Amino acid sequence: MPRYRLLIEYDGAPYVGWQRQTNGRAVQQAIEEAVAAFCGEPASVNGAGRTDTGVHALGQVAHIHLVREWPADTVRDAINAHLRPEPVAILRAEQVHNDFDARFSAVKRYYRYVIVNRRAPLALDAGRAWQVMKPLDAAAMHEAGQALVGHHDFTTFRSTECQSASPVKTLDRLAVARDGERIVVDCSARSFLHNQVRSMVGSLKLVGEGKWAAADLKAALEARDRTACGPVAPPDGLYLVKVDYPD
Amino acid sequence: MPRYRLLIEYDGAPYVGWQRQTNGRAVQQAIEEAVAAFCGEPASVNGAGRTDTGVHALGQVAHIHLVREWPADTVRDAINAHLRPEPVAILRAEQVHNDFDARFSAVKRYYRYVIVNRRAPLALDAGRAWQVMKPLDAAAMHEAGQALVGHHDFTTFRSTECQSASPVKTLDRLAVARDGERIVVDCSARSFLHNQVRSMVGSLKLVGEGKWAAADLKAALEARDRTACGPVAPPDGLYLVKVDYPD
Repeated sequence: MPRYRLLIEYDGAPYVGWQRQTNGRAVQQAIEEAVAAFCGEPASVNGAGRTDTGVHALGQVAHIHLVREWPADTVRDAINAHLRPEPVAILRAEQVHNDFDARFSAVKRYYRYVIVNRRAPLALDAGRAWQVMKPLDAAAMHEAGQALVGHHDFTTFRSTECQSASPVKTLDRLAVARDGERIVVDCSARSFLHNQVRSMVGSLKLVGEGKWAAADLKAALEARDRTACGPVAPPDGLYLVKVDYPD
Repeated sequence: MPRYRLLIEYDGAPYVGWQRQTNGRAVQQAIEEAVAAFCGEPASVNGAGRTDTGVHALGQVAHIHLVREWPADTVRDAINAHLRPEPVAILRAEQVHNDFDARFSAVKRYYRYVIVNRRAPLALDAGRAWQVMKPLDAAAMHEAGQALVGHHDFTTFRSTECQSASPVKTLDRLAVARDGERIVVDCSARSFLHNQVRSMVGSLKLVGEGKWAAADLKAALEARDRTACGPVAPPDGLYLVKVDYPD
């Protein structure tokens, strides 16, 4: 059976997240229905990152098996046609080897968190960023955040619902940069724990507003205790940007 | 009566445009209602740019008179509180002299038009950009567009409903630049005719896809004939970015 790799963009706001749930519509489900409508066969769409309710993607990756072989551009255009008017778009489709697995072949995932640091509510970025009214010191957030980079037990920054076998992960990069009123937090790692980025950003915000010193963030990490985490940042500002594969 | 200058951001999608109309809700109306709810007096909000149905603003400017004098930050926060949940935000309020008029004191208006040049539909930018599937040559668009810069009769690029006394305007700048799949057209002038930016962008798109040469765009301008204009670009991609005043 031919296998295709899909590059996917979506607005997470109307969905319960990437993965099928019993409590609402998932992005995975929207795509599976579009694939089934296009080729007349039930299809299973397997994603690289199980984004949560309300979390967006600029470059989610998934793979699907189809019974028939189609030109890759036809697969992309036909799924997009059947997805309408959902805010989900297949940016690219390409045929891949049968040993390609969007989730297990991935070697790096890139997430971005966008904060808009201002008093006024968000008109154009509503649902697309986290509005933080108190002025944040992005340089202090960046500096403190370097304590999280590397191989650590991230129990503090892990949802109690996380199903990962181990809380130990390697965070390759965490960079905080301000551009006017926007503060962007970029993170990359082979894999992340459930709610890890939002948990780290929620704690970094405490550093940014001066409630926590850099040492407090480091102590929170070292506590390996979920209750040591700052309030988790909302899903609105989080984007799955890109997934890397060995090819 | 104290006068305030407001800096305003909005998502134009749910509105019939800036100005009050009989056929739907206008941004002006949303703000006037919020001002009235805040200070208990009917208020008139006068904007610098009369953006059309579906057109957005990053930096619209308006002025209002209030009966009582309030701290400017209170004016901003109180209007924002009463605007909720409309996608309209007062970014800044400041008290100004009574001779300040948002429309007539303006010396320059900046508009931006955003095209996303790709086959896949827009998931995150739906309603915020114009999706053009055919590959566009942004450099050719920029070069041809320079013929529009300067003092011209813009009858070709003017809606038949335009109420301006004269079709002669001075376009100070028109710049087209590509950043990946995004093509941004930046224009500035003291003032614009009705639908002028969208008319110019619609014709520039014909240049970008190779249907028009630069000479065709110049000939369209010189025809001073509305029927010589290319199809007008949709409102989705248009943003009123900034308005300059002598201060």
